[in-house]
Amino acid sequence: MNYEEKTMKSEKVYKGKIVNLRIDTVELPDKKYSKREIVEHPGSVGIIPITDDNCMVLVKQFRKPVEKNLLEIPAGKIEINEEPRQTALRELEEETGYISNNLEYLFEFYTSPGFSNEKMYLFIATELLEGEADPENDEYIENVKIKIEDLVDMVDKGEINDSKTIIGIFYAERYINQKK
Amino acid sequence: MNYEEKTMKSEKVYKGKIVNLRIDTVELPDKKYSKREIVEHPGSVGIIPITDDNCMVLVKQFRKPVEKNLLEIPAGKIEINEEPRQTALRELEEETGYISNNLEYLFEFYTSPGFSNEKMYLFIATELLEGEADPENDEYIENVKIKIEDLVDMVDKGEINDSKTIIGIFYAERYINQKK
Repeated sequence: MNYEEKTMKSEKVYKGKIVNLRIDTVELPDKKYSKREIVEHPGSVGIIPITDDNCMVLVKQFRKPVEKNLLEIPAGKIEINEEPRQTALRELEEETGYISNNLEYLFEFYTSPGFSNEKMYLFIATELLEGEADPENDEYIENVKIKIEDLVDMVDKGEINDSKTIIGIFYAERYINQKK
Repeated sequence: MNYEEKTMKSEKVYKGKIVNLRIDTVELPDKKYSKREIVEHPGSVGIIPITDDNCMVLVKQFRKPVEKNLLEIPAGKIEINEEPRQTALRELEEETGYISNNLEYLFEFYTSPGFSNEKMYLFIATELLEGEADPENDEYIENVKIKIEDLVDMVDKGEINDSKTIIGIFYAERYINQKK
């Protein structure tokens, strides 16, 4: 099976700084029409920074959409003309101060494919050198270094509430188990 | 540290079937103003259905925002007056036909907290009884049953491209390892 939904009409509703919104009218397999609300996003990267002593470096920041401070892996929007790898190195250094001598691409995923095209490229960063963080003007970010085994407990207790970060922690747990 | 961004102005841009869009003007800790684009979403549930023979039941569906057929765990929007647990049981049955005699809440997470408030409640469903799927009118869905160990390989090979599904597969791997 390979369904497709043919676009019959596409209406741009909003063009913003980070996201655009458009409404597509699509034709379903039964020839009926339906509407799809689509949030366009330029794509982003997430980085799993693992230190030699089996910790992860996370960032804590206020997220206006959810009105909460969240603990997350470093991440950021891909800028125009940037390759995901460049974004990953840049965001890691800006948000945490760390530089990685071993950045590896893992895989990519959509964060919310039901209503958005945001694609995230996930990287693992090891051989880390500590430096000074340098966040962007409107970013207020704090760094936290936490043991991977403690982070796994935090996920199970519901204390980590960001999808990419949960993926990162589960991946890190597998990574250090395979090193053993 | 506990930053907050005070809302100075809030403008509703779009009110849709699944999402709304609003633009908040916020005051940053340095008293400067910035804009936040916020996609409002009613929240959703994801279900990790694990069979007695260590498989997961996944759904394959066309996702217009990304113009692709994706393999995903069953999931869906929380309807008005619905508890997440009810949504989970309903979506599992509608999308896969399976009924679970053991549905457990795991934890919850935001799918894209940088621009959306979508929160997903994650459940694990075991003791499954096979039945007939009954998707909604505008949903065209196919069911697939795959071994958890094969799904882990598929994640590593980049063949699973949905964030909640990657979380579900990593969780399922830990779950069957703990049963051993």
